[in-house]
Amino acid sequence: MNISTEQKSRRSGGRSARVALRAAPLAEEIRPIRPGMKGGQYKPLTDAQVARIHEAALQALEEIGLSQAPQSGVEAMTAAGAIQGDDGRLRFPRALVEDMLAKAARNITLNARNPKHDLLLEENRVYFGTAGAAVHLVDPINRTYRDSTIQDLYDAARIVEQLDNVHFFQRCMVARDITDNLQMDLNTVYACVSGTSKHIGTSFSEPSHVAPCMDLIHEIAGGEDAWRARPFISNSNCFVVPPMKFAEESCVAMEHCIRAGMPVLLLSAGQAGATAPAPIALAIVQAVAECLAGVVYVNSIAPGHPAIFGTWPFVSDLRTGAMSGGSAEQALLTAGCAQMHRFYGLPGGAAAGISDSKLPDMQAGWEQGITNVMAGLAGLNMVYEAVGMHASLLGFCLESLVLGDDILGQALRAVRGIDVTEDSVSLDAMKAVCLGGPGHYLGTDQTLALMQTEYTYPKLGNRMSPKEWEEAKKPDLLANAVARKQAILDSTGSLMPRELDRAIRARWPIHF
Amino acid sequence: MNISTEQKSRRSGGRSARVALRAAPLAEEIRPIRPGMKGGQYKPLTDAQVARIHEAALQALEEIGLSQAPQSGVEAMTAAGAIQGDDGRLRFPRALVEDMLAKAARNITLNARNPKHDLLLEENRVYFGTAGAAVHLVDPINRTYRDSTIQDLYDAARIVEQLDNVHFFQRCMVARDITDNLQMDLNTVYACVSGTSKHIGTSFSEPSHVAPCMDLIHEIAGGEDAWRARPFISNSNCFVVPPMKFAEESCVAMEHCIRAGMPVLLLSAGQAGATAPAPIALAIVQAVAECLAGVVYVNSIAPGHPAIFGTWPFVSDLRTGAMSGGSAEQALLTAGCAQMHRFYGLPGGAAAGISDSKLPDMQAGWEQGITNVMAGLAGLNMVYEAVGMHASLLGFCLESLVLGDDILGQALRAVRGIDVTEDSVSLDAMKAVCLGGPGHYLGTDQTLALMQTEYTYPKLGNRMSPKEWEEAKKPDLLANAVARKQAILDSTGSLMPRELDRAIRARWPIHF
Repeated sequence: MNISTEQKSRRSGGRSARVALRAAPLAEEIRPIRPGMKGGQYKPLTDAQVARIHEAALQALEEIGLSQAPQSGVEAMTAAGAIQGDDGRLRFPRALVEDMLAKAARNITLNARNPKHDLLLEENRVYFGTAGAAVHLVDPINRTYRDSTIQDLYDAARIVEQLDNVHFFQRCMVARDITDNLQMDLNTVYACVSGTSKHIGTSFSEPSHVAPCMDLIHEIAGGEDAWRARPFISNSNCFVVPPMKFAEESCVAMEHCIRAGMPVLLLSAGQAGATAPAPIALAIVQAVAECLAGVVYVNSIAPGHPAIFGTWPFVSDLRTGAMSGGSAEQALLTAGCAQMHRFYGLPGGAAAGISDSKLPDMQAGWEQGITNVMAGLAGLNMVYEAVGMHASLLGFCLESLVLGDDILGQALRAVRGIDVTEDSVSLDAMKAVCLGGPGHYLGTDQTLALMQTEYTYPKLGNRMSPKEWEEAKKPDLLANAVARKQAILDSTGSLMPRELDRAIRARWPIHF
Repeated sequence: MNISTEQKSRRSGGRSARVALRAAPLAEEIRPIRPGMKGGQYKPLTDAQVARIHEAALQALEEIGLSQAPQSGVEAMTAAGAIQGDDGRLRFPRALVEDMLAKAARNITLNARNPKHDLLLEENRVYFGTAGAAVHLVDPINRTYRDSTIQDLYDAARIVEQLDNVHFFQRCMVARDITDNLQMDLNTVYACVSGTSKHIGTSFSEPSHVAPCMDLIHEIAGGEDAWRARPFISNSNCFVVPPMKFAEESCVAMEHCIRAGMPVLLLSAGQAGATAPAPIALAIVQAVAECLAGVVYVNSIAPGHPAIFGTWPFVSDLRTGAMSGGSAEQALLTAGCAQMHRFYGLPGGAAAGISDSKLPDMQAGWEQGITNVMAGLAGLNMVYEAVGMHASLLGFCLESLVLGDDILGQALRAVRGIDVTEDSVSLDAMKAVCLGGPGHYLGTDQTLALMQTEYTYPKLGNRMSPKEWEEAKKPDLLANAVARKQAILDSTGSLMPRELDRAIRARWPIHF
C-alpha cells in the first residue's frame, strides 16, 4: 500500500533475483515448514470437557462394553481383567483401562524406508498423509469416475514421494482390477513401496493374508530381522464395527500383524447419526471408548506394542444418511479427538481433508482447507485422508493430490504459528525504517532473510495481478495440476532395486 | 459404514421427508449458526507473547511515535498528553495510552437499518462481512476482469441481504463509472442502503465530502436525530499510512465523521515486508501501535466514541513485493491481531477470506476457507473482506460471494464448536442402541432432533454420491452459483420506500 514510484522500481529491479533465490531448494534445517511441527494452539474442548468425555467413555466401557470379540481376544482380555457378561459382551473395569493405558506405547516412531521420512509421534507433532479405500479414480478434466486400479495406486505413491507436505502414504485406493483378494493385498503393498520411500499404511483384514504378505515384506526389507528393526508399514485395522462391537476377523488379522512386528492403527470409523451418536460430543465418547478397548486388546496380548489411537468418527448428512467428510461437523469431531489423544498422551490419528465434492473445485478447496487446518492446529499426530479424497471418500484424484500439497503447506505454516522472539519483536528494525530511514521495509536485511525462512509459497497457487495473469494467458489451476502430475509420472519410476524387483516379480504375480 | 440392507431401505424411506423438513426455514432461535457466535478456541499467541507484543507497541509509541498528524489532531492529542518532538513526530507516554484505553468504547453495537441485523461487538463474538476497494468485477464464466460499477455494488448489496452468513456490508468495490469523487461517495452510500438493511461500511477520506454525504444519510434515516439514535453506517478510516505516519486528510475526515455521530474503523493497513516489518510478530506490533495511536486520537477529541480497533496488516509475497491475502501468513497476522483485540477488550476487526486466485477455483476455496476459519476460531469481532474477494483485493466476484456464504456457514459451525452438556454426553442414547436396541442411530429421536439444530448444510456445496451426481447430469458448482446469483438479482429490488427514493433521486444524481 502507498508505495512510491521510486520504491516500485527498486522492487522490480530486485524481483528476478529474489525469485531465483527462492526457487533454489532450501536446506532442510531452514525450511519454514517441516514434517512434525507442533500444533495444539486450537482447543475445541475445555479441560473440564475433555475430562467429562473421558469419564463418559470409561462409563461406557464399564456399563455397555463391546460384543463379538474373537475367542483369542476374549481370552487375552479376560485374563487381563475384562469381564464377559451373560450377554456375551466384554466389559472393562476402569482400573483395567488405566493399567493398560500405563503400558501403552508412547512417543513412537513410524519408520520409513528412507529414514529422513521417519515420523515421530509425540506431543502435538503433526503429519499429513493419504488414506482411505476409494473405489474410483477421478478424471477432473473429463469429469468422470472410473474404477481405480493398482497402477493408479502406484502412480499416487510416486506422486506422494515428490510432495514435501505429504508425509506418509497410506493406501488410498482399492485396486479393483485385481479380483483375488490375496493378490490385491500383495500388490497393494508392492505398489506402495515401489512408489514411495515414505512410511506406508496398508490394511489387512483377512487373517490368512498376513503371513503371505509378510513373506513379501521380508523380501522387500532384506529379511525378517531387518523388517523388525525398522518396520516401515503399519496396518490400519478396523477392529471395531461401531457401535461398540469388535470386528472378529479384523481383530484376528490385527493379532497376526502384532505378532509380525507391525505397528497398528486402531481404527474406529463410526459415522455420527448412523453408526455413532449424532451429538458430536457423544460420537467422540463412543470413538474414545472403542479405541480404549483397542488399547486394552493390544496391550493384553503385546504390552507396549506400537498402536495409533484411531478415533475416526465420520459425519452423516442427517437429511440423507450419506457421509459428509468435508463438513464443519467432521472438522470438529477430528479436532476434538486430537485433544483426547493428547489427554491420554497416546499417538493419535483421525481423518481430515476429505471433500464431498466430486471434483477439485472451489468446494473441494474450502472443505479440504478448513478441515486440514483445524486438524493441524488441534495438534493431531496423524492426519489421515488429508489429500486427494473426493465424493466423501469414494473417489481419489491425482490432480487434487498435487494441488493438496499447497493446501497442506498452508496448514503447516499455520501450525508453525507466530514466532515471538527478541529478534522478531525488536524495535530496531522499525526505528531504522521510520526514524530517518527509507520509510518502508522493502529490501531490508530482515525482510530478505525472512523471505526463505518464514514465508511459504504455493507451487500451483497463483498470486499474479490481473494484469500479469492476462499477459500470461490466464493460467488455469487445474491445467497446471495436470501438467505437474504428468511431469512427476513421466520422470519417476520404481524405487525398487532392479534385481530385487525381478526376484519379487518372479515369485509373486505383480499387476503393474 | 457397515449399514445393513434393511437399515439402508429404512434410510431411503425417511429421506425425502427429512429433506423436506430441513428445507423449511428454521426459526431464528434454533438455528445451529447465528451471527455473533463466540470464538476464541484458537490462540496463536501465549499470554506471555501477547504481553510482549503489547509492551513493544507501547515502546514504539514512546520512542518512535507517529509523524504527520494534522494540526487539529496535534492539538487534541498534545492537550491530552502526547508530546511533539523537534522532528515533528507525536510520541505517546504509556500513561496516556492507558488513560485513553480506559476511556475507549467497549461492547459497542453497530446498528443496522433492520435491527435484527445489529452487531454486538463484545468479547469473542464473530461477524463476517465484505469490505475492500476492488476496482474490477470478475466474470468467472468468461474468465474476464472489467472495471467495477455502481450497479455492481448495488447488486452485491442485494445479494448480501439474502445471505444468512454475511452479517454486514462494507463497500467492497469502487464505482469506476463515476468520475466525480463526491458523486461516487454519495452513490456508494445510496447503493449500499438501497440493496441491504444490514450494517453498512463506507469510506470517506476527503473531509469536504462528509457534510454533503451526511445530508443524504439524514434524509435516508428520516432526520439527524433518527440517524444519531441508530447510526447504521460506519466509516472505514485509513487514518495511518504505515509505517507510523498519520494520513492527514483521512484523519480530518475521521474527525468530521466522529462529529457526525458515525462509528469509525481505525484501519491500519500495513503490508508485512513492504510498509510493515516482515516478521509476523513485529508487523502485529506496528499495527497495534498505530491503532493505539488511533485510540488516543479518537478519545482525545470524543471520549468513548465508538471505534473499531482495525489492525489489518496484510502480507507481501516477499519474492515479488506483491500482496498475498490468501496466505497462511495472512491468516496468522489476522488471528494474532484478534488476540490483541481481546487483550485490550476493544471491539476489533481485521481482514480474512481474501483469495489471491483470479477466479473462484480450488485455490480460492482453500485460501478463503483457511483464512476465514482461523479468523473465526480466533474470535475476531469483525471479519472484513471475508467473501467475494479475488486477486489479492483487486477483483470482486458476485458468484464467489454466493459460494462464500457456504464457506462462512462452515466457519461459523466451527466457531460454535462442540456442545458438551449432560444431554450430549449422556450414555442413555448409546445404551438404547447397543443393549438390545437396533444397533444403529439412524432415525432415533436424538438424531432427528439434532438434524436441524446442530448440523449445517451447504446451499451450493454438493454432497451427492458419484452415482447420484451422474444421474443428476453432474451439476457444476459454478453454474449453480451463477443461477443462484441471477435468481437473487431477478427477485429483489431496492429496499428504499418509493417516495423516499423519488425524493432522493430528485435531489442527488443517482447513477444506478
